[in-house]
Amino acid sequence: MFFASDNAGPAHPKVMEALVRANEGYRGGYGADAEMVEVTRLVREIFEAPDAAVYLVGTGTAANVILLATLANPWDTIFCSPMAHIHEDECNAPEFYTGAKLTLVPETNAKMTPESLRTAMEAEEIRGVHGPQRGPVSLTQATEKGTVYSVEELQALTEVAKDFGCKTHMDGARFTNALVTLSCTPAEMTWKAGIDAVSFGGTKNGLMGVEACIIFDPKLAWEFELRRKRGGHLFSKHRYLSAQMLAYLTDDLWLQMARAANTRTAELIAGLETLPQVDLLYQPKANVTFARFPRRDHKRLQNAGASYYIWDGDAQTGDPDEPLTARFVTDWSMTPDQVQMFLQHFAAG
Amino acid sequence: MFFASDNAGPAHPKVMEALVRANEGYRGGYGADAEMVEVTRLVREIFEAPDAAVYLVGTGTAANVILLATLANPWDTIFCSPMAHIHEDECNAPEFYTGAKLTLVPETNAKMTPESLRTAMEAEEIRGVHGPQRGPVSLTQATEKGTVYSVEELQALTEVAKDFGCKTHMDGARFTNALVTLSCTPAEMTWKAGIDAVSFGGTKNGLMGVEACIIFDPKLAWEFELRRKRGGHLFSKHRYLSAQMLAYLTDDLWLQMARAANTRTAELIAGLETLPQVDLLYQPKANVTFARFPRRDHKRLQNAGASYYIWDGDAQTGDPDEPLTARFVTDWSMTPDQVQMFLQHFAAG
Amino acid sequence: MFFASDNAGPAHPKVMEALVRANEGYRGGYGADAEMVEVTRLVREIFEAPDAAVYLVGTGTAANVILLATLANPWDTIFCSPMAHIHEDECNAPEFYTGAKLTLVPETNAKMTPESLRTAMEAEEIRGVHGPQRGPVSLTQATEKGTVYSVEELQALTEVAKDFGCKTHMDGARFTNALVTLSCTPAEMTWKAGIDAVSFGGTKNGLMGVEACIIFDPKLAWEFELRRKRGGHLFSKHRYLSAQMLAYLTDDLWLQMARAANTRTAELIAGLETLPQVDLLYQPKANVTFARFPRRDHKRLQNAGASYYIWDGDAQTGDPDEPLTARFVTDWSMTPDQVQMFLQHFAAG
Amino acid sequence: MFFASDNAGPAHPKVMEALVRANEGYRGGYGADAEMVEVTRLVREIFEAPDAAVYLVGTGTAANVILLATLANPWDTIFCSPMAHIHEDECNAPEFYTGAKLTLVPETNAKMTPESLRTAMEAEEIRGVHGPQRGPVSLTQATEKGTVYSVEELQALTEVAKDFGCKTHMDGARFTNALVTLSCTPAEMTWKAGIDAVSFGGTKNGLMGVEACIIFDPKLAWEFELRRKRGGHLFSKHRYLSAQMLAYLTDDLWLQMARAANTRTAELIAGLETLPQVDLLYQPKANVTFARFPRRDHKRLQNAGASYYIWDGDAQTGDPDEPLTARFVTDWSMTPDQVQMFLQHFAAG
Repeated sequence: MFFASDNAGPAHPKVMEALVRANEGYRGGYGADAEMVEVTRLVREIFEAPDAAVYLVGTGTAANVILLATLANPWDTIFCSPMAHIHEDECNAPEFYTGAKLTLVPETNAKMTPESLRTAMEAEEIRGVHGPQRGPVSLTQATEKGTVYSVEELQALTEVAKDFGCKTHMDGARFTNALVTLSCTPAEMTWKAGIDAVSFGGTKNGLMGVEACIIFDPKLAWEFELRRKRGGHLFSKHRYLSAQMLAYLTDDLWLQMARAANTRTAELIAGLETLPQVDLLYQPKANVTFARFPRRDHKRLQNAGASYYIWDGDAQTGDPDEPLTARFVTDWSMTPDQVQMFLQHFAAG
Repeated sequence: MFFASDNAGPAHPKVMEALVRANEGYRGGYGADAEMVEVTRLVREIFEAPDAAVYLVGTGTAANVILLATLANPWDTIFCSPMAHIHEDECNAPEFYTGAKLTLVPETNAKMTPESLRTAMEAEEIRGVHGPQRGPVSLTQATEKGTVYSVEELQALTEVAKDFGCKTHMDGARFTNALVTLSCTPAEMTWKAGIDAVSFGGTKNGLMGVEACIIFDPKLAWEFELRRKRGGHLFSKHRYLSAQMLAYLTDDLWLQMARAANTRTAELIAGLETLPQVDLLYQPKANVTFARFPRRDHKRLQNAGASYYIWDGDAQTGDPDEPLTARFVTDWSMTPDQVQMFLQHFAAG
Repeated sequence: MFFASDNAGPAHPKVMEALVRANEGYRGGYGADAEMVEVTRLVREIFEAPDAAVYLVGTGTAANVILLATLANPWDTIFCSPMAHIHEDECNAPEFYTGAKLTLVPETNAKMTPESLRTAMEAEEIRGVHGPQRGPVSLTQATEKGTVYSVEELQALTEVAKDFGCKTHMDGARFTNALVTLSCTPAEMTWKAGIDAVSFGGTKNGLMGVEACIIFDPKLAWEFELRRKRGGHLFSKHRYLSAQMLAYLTDDLWLQMARAANTRTAELIAGLETLPQVDLLYQPKANVTFARFPRRDHKRLQNAGASYYIWDGDAQTGDPDEPLTARFVTDWSMTPDQVQMFLQHFAAG
Repeated sequence: MFFASDNAGPAHPKVMEALVRANEGYRGGYGADAEMVEVTRLVREIFEAPDAAVYLVGTGTAANVILLATLANPWDTIFCSPMAHIHEDECNAPEFYTGAKLTLVPETNAKMTPESLRTAMEAEEIRGVHGPQRGPVSLTQATEKGTVYSVEELQALTEVAKDFGCKTHMDGARFTNALVTLSCTPAEMTWKAGIDAVSFGGTKNGLMGVEACIIFDPKLAWEFELRRKRGGHLFSKHRYLSAQMLAYLTDDLWLQMARAANTRTAELIAGLETLPQVDLLYQPKANVTFARFPRRDHKRLQNAGASYYIWDGDAQTGDPDEPLTARFVTDWSMTPDQVQMFLQHFAAG
């Protein structure tokens, strides 16, 4: 009953096997490994983007901020949701790498809307050199709250960005969870919808710690490489990153793991919806759920060994009827039984 | 016959086994894993430093620059050898993270001397706010050229630094290779010799990609943590870093691997010394050797499948008698037979 | 009828005379001029702060961002109003100098309230290293909209900051305009009210281009000096900055000029309040007024030669009844006649 | 007898008159003043560069670092002399603004040579992303030691830079002192010799504190403007900068002042050459002289009230025969009598 985060569970056994396999013999360092050639080929094929630049880094923050630094100028402002990971959870790494600032665009159901984005971009009136200039738009797919932009919504947002001559970045830490929800192609969810660069997450979906950075305009590739090195994010024994990503993209493992994670969340939601004391927040469609319920239920679940984050409210003291907000995340490794056991504990109140 | 780099060979099988073991079940993220508790305990024990702050990052550049940013102010200059990795091989990452500049201290046998350091630090005369201020001294042990500072040499350098009120950093990407050469304790080679912070390398010595950052003054710990996160270097699935370092420090694996690598280099040097056409550069005592020999030998070795870096000179064209400078690095996985085979090809000229 | 900005009018003749006087003979550079000794003495006396560090820079942005960089860490967030000059008008200079980000605190009448500040600081929940840490609070006195914090309001805000262990900065580009409104002492409006550092503006109040930076804790002085130099803001012929500030602080010139500017705005407001088509925004108490009135009035005023900024709305096209928002600023050099002439043109519609 | 610096003397009376004149009436702020239109026209005419971008800032450091940030990438290294002001006297401002590092090119007579520059640029071998990339070359004209590059030497240096695809910057803090020595045109000393951007100094040559930044490729203009604002170097009451530069360029005032300063130095050198105890360093051709002479002479000169910088050696203690190195700088305001009086005191030993 471990719902704390999709970074808490194990990597898939096939990933570990690939690592052991990749551990044979000698390889060129710093990305010059045979596995990376194959990763690049596969990513380009899967994204139908034969010219895309493809790179690997070790953390999601690194993927986001190196890509944003490649898209933004130091005098820009980057448009994102107030719930964006780049705003809330990266300890000023975006500001450090880009020199830019962030403008928070009001969200609905954890998603920017074309209207809220347009209003924010217009409000960032250009007063010569006085204010920041309009920079890239960064959106998270699936969002930090488990909701998913439809392809049409993505298209509408990138069109707003383009109206202002701005580029777009997708924080895809949970890319695949969104993709299997939409049942569209990776190309449809990215460049065909107007996205310029993607943080294509692996870590939250069954890898040990690898994110791919995909840039559809290869003219930006060299700058990305220099910024990655200058950030200390180029791995010498790069083959171990490549091997993970290679296993991920082989035999649809990435899709299978995301489907499993999403299915567990769907089961969780189905169960929670039957509980009168639970309010579901947002309209989650991936592997993250936010719910609000009385502290008495939390105490019981906690005693039963369930693990998840309290997002809002004081879990320790006060009225047992007082509601708390909690986040539940499922990953590929969770079993249906674990979800049901959790729901039984919940219903036992 | 792969002498290109100690980042080209495999990780030790025990490291892979530890990874597979660590892949069971759930863990707290971002360093809150049980394995990290054990890593911290072991590092403190091995370094006889019960209060030391211990952190893990994925690359040697990250270790160096986050530590230096924790020790330096943006208006400082950092003193290092002209051959220092932080100067030559990190694409301005030190400048990016610290805001400081580097002052190059003349080297002898790839090592700064107390005299050259004192002269450099004095020359950085303090003219109020006009020039940079004196910042930390960073030295590499073993050096980039395979030489090793004695404990007395380290002590003498750190005393110069302290005379100017400056802190000291050791880039220990090849820490263990130096340690087994000196046959001293980790404490003797670090804090007892006046070192304030260490990049304790694992990647070049049989791990997949982990470096420990050790800070002997725990008051700097929190700043380091914030700088690590802000650089994008805090891993969510941190257990996989911890597991590698734990295997490394268990049953003297780290020492065994460094001894094996150093022994291969000793065998290589012994063989090269018998070849009249070879000039050895520096006085290497770890696992790195620089040698100078005619291009005709290089061609033959290359044809035989040997791999190593040409450091200086044009390998492709020109006079077969023209000498080239090459670097040879051995790692834990190289066998004595491979060294002897290489020497036979060399001698066959 | 020039209401565009308080940076558009002339410097006071006494300032020019002081400059000419200071132009005699030789002086030490970089702040080592006799005039600066006197400036420091006077500022300390006027602010009743015998230990305060006092420095001069050439622009208001420089004053703000060097002070904030001295107060903030790169992993912090700085709390300010959404209308703050540091947010809207400094092209990411705060982010550049501090490395930090800005958190926008909702305003009422262009002022942060203790409640809105507390809510914002609490919401910046400390989640270990993930989010930014709480940094300094920066408030503008008088505000960008011409309103003025009372001493009690200042006290209440700085108490909130102190509850979170945070420092406070006052952007006093229009410091004196606020001071003469409050009829309090400089000490009461700053350190006695809990302010740690002040951008004490001169440029908008009759100088050519000088701002004093006042830091009440002298332990931060040296860091400020290094950051000023590193930003390129230390003037070699510093005497010309000192001479301006010296004239400013002599014989109450600074107070006289601010009183004149404020009186002109009071006259302007008195006149505008009699015009039914004009809505005054905010409750201005210094030398800045925002008003909303039909485009037909704007056209007439423009034709009459009046100058001011249109803040909101399209001045060129559309319905003559459509309202625009305009900003009016008065400076020391404006005459009562000019205000009355402007009001006559306004009333002539 | 004030030889300490060319920033210690007064501004020219015509400059003060121009300031007083410019103080009449209202002007647009932030560079939108009528005086600046005229400055731009004059600079373009004088430099025979009708498309050049022309901007004003308040300090020489600001001019250098904003220009360099416009020419360099954060992953570059900037080539300059070890005596360059940007290396020795700007407290890491170049690193702060550019993110780049500096590579020191050996000097002869305080000047880089084409050979030393080529060697340095070649040595900065491009090893993919590992080392910094080759960035702009920055040279100082006249140099910090009072020597002057000939037009042919400039041409030869910029050709080396161009061979590597790199841009060139001239730190012209003493531009005019060099220009009148060479008796060439500003165009010949800059863009015709391959220079891309110039810090065109005024402060050391009779202004209060203004430097022009001239960029010959107008495509870089907007980036410069944003970087100037982001550095806090855009003056609101910009007319006072424009007025100074306008007076400077009117009726050859700039040339007259530089000629006067250079003539005083020529007189000084002529006198020093007759003194057997004096060794002149370098071959100065502008308004700066370095000389070496016994401490006993220094004591006598000091007692006579002469002022200059001791560059090397301890002025206070020790053997009266021990030589010191001193720097003498003359400015427009020094009279021939003052030089002769100084020489008489020197000769009186």
